[in-house]
Amino acid sequence: MFFERVAIVGVGLIGGSFGLALKAAKRCGHVVGAGRSAANMKVAMERGAIDSFEADAGKAAANADLVLVATPVAQIEKIFLAIKPNLKPGAAVTDAGSTKRDVVAAARRALGARLAQLAPAHPIAGAEKSGAAAASAELFRGRRVVLTPLPETDAGAAEKVAAAWGACGARLSRMTPEEHDGVFAAVSHLPHVLAYALVSDIAGRPDAARLFGYAAGGFRDFTRIASSHPEMWRDICVANRDGLLREIDSYEQKLEDMKVMLQKADALALERLFSDARAARERWLNGEYE
Amino acid sequence: MFFERVAIVGVGLIGGSFGLALKAAKRCGHVVGAGRSAANMKVAMERGAIDSFEADAGKAAANADLVLVATPVAQIEKIFLAIKPNLKPGAAVTDAGSTKRDVVAAARRALGARLAQLAPAHPIAGAEKSGAAAASAELFRGRRVVLTPLPETDAGAAEKVAAAWGACGARLSRMTPEEHDGVFAAVSHLPHVLAYALVSDIAGRPDAARLFGYAAGGFRDFTRIASSHPEMWRDICVANRDGLLREIDSYEQKLEDMKVMLQKADALALERLFSDARAARERWLNGEYE
Repeated sequence: MFFERVAIVGVGLIGGSFGLALKAAKRCGHVVGAGRSAANMKVAMERGAIDSFEADAGKAAANADLVLVATPVAQIEKIFLAIKPNLKPGAAVTDAGSTKRDVVAAARRALGARLAQLAPAHPIAGAEKSGAAAASAELFRGRRVVLTPLPETDAGAAEKVAAAWGACGARLSRMTPEEHDGVFAAVSHLPHVLAYALVSDIAGRPDAARLFGYAAGGFRDFTRIASSHPEMWRDICVANRDGLLREIDSYEQKLEDMKVMLQKADALALERLFSDARAARERWLNGEYE
Repeated sequence: MFFERVAIVGVGLIGGSFGLALKAAKRCGHVVGAGRSAANMKVAMERGAIDSFEADAGKAAANADLVLVATPVAQIEKIFLAIKPNLKPGAAVTDAGSTKRDVVAAARRALGARLAQLAPAHPIAGAEKSGAAAASAELFRGRRVVLTPLPETDAGAAEKVAAAWGACGARLSRMTPEEHDGVFAAVSHLPHVLAYALVSDIAGRPDAARLFGYAAGGFRDFTRIASSHPEMWRDICVANRDGLLREIDSYEQKLEDMKVMLQKADALALERLFSDARAARERWLNGEYE
């Protein structure tokens, strides 16, 4: 599968890496970018992630064989509306949104007769760095990309999208949008909220400088995802807020259980919880849940 | 400052690294270890962290010029009792406990007339690996060691302990045990509890395998400290439970605030919180709080 012309709307970490990876795999001809920041577009050009750029997503999508929408999720509906009139028959559209129910709902509202050309996707390959400057041809190598095709998705479009993500080195899996949002509320959206909450809690105190002064490697790794892109995570949290609120409730219940153990100085229960958690994490690291 | 004979009780990650670092700095003669696991002692010998070992802490401490107690904190009182009769005048004692009020209280109960020989310490250099096999001469290089000397601590003992940790490459600071436990409840003990809680929450579900299957790099780093030594962290949590419970309450309040933002879909408030947290973390990473 070769794509003569690829359009990437939003050439940040994900969009830029997609361009670099397709080019490295020699699976595309011309790549045109579109985005809000001309400075970032220039970086993307210099990095070789795109060959040209347009300020307008609709213009970029014209004549493209494959369109990736890799903006924060709240912008996706507007972009679907912009590309729809210019989308050529047979072109495939995918996205990189970290939430999928909202993307599918936006597509149903915005794409009309073009809906069958969309195969939504979520590459599980983030980083706390953002922008084209952080992009890498290797970002998706060995990482999962979750595809959430619609019942309406055309088989040819689904095949093209799968081929493109596969060419980036990703391992593909498929879920419904509902399954997707439930899983990622637990293993991704919740940890981001928890990390932001800790940094915010510490930073808001009168003695924040002193506290940060003694924070070390454990704190650094725990809070790495609190350096994630605020706008992107705002959109994810709002889009998946029902699932996320359920996850926070479940987590708070776990904290309540642990508070009782602490109040009782129940060393045995604490050690058992810590041991079981460590063992589960080791099994995960050993690939037993792949 | 040169120590003819050093005793290390508990030759795990911290104790083993202390031996390796003092030897690398050529600041000690013979190093004798003591510990519960003969297998671990043999690893410590092979690694060169110790030159000999005893099963009994009291025997190891006999004739030592410097004694480091680097066991989980709940064992420290028992070890103070064991070494007290054998401690030679002029010897200095330090520890590596992650909590300090309990270590000081244990010392007041156990060390009697030897109390002045103790200068408690907390090296801020953990890892999720444990045991002598994970020890490194470089573990303390550039890291903070917080000293919490008692009013009774003899100036000579304080100087020896500071010299020893300094020879390991550490940056020294001083606090009261109360200040210490307050600071580390916030920046260390709380994040450990939060990471253990997340892994425990996920691992306890019927669909845990599926959820872990989609967990990625953010989850891995967030939960790294949930692979920490369960017994060590059990003891820390129990010893500092009042401070830790206060921190959990403060954190839960922050989560409640964020839940309200999510319930209202208050994108602006969420983005502001995320941006402020990211900015605070960047300032910290840039060394503005050193």
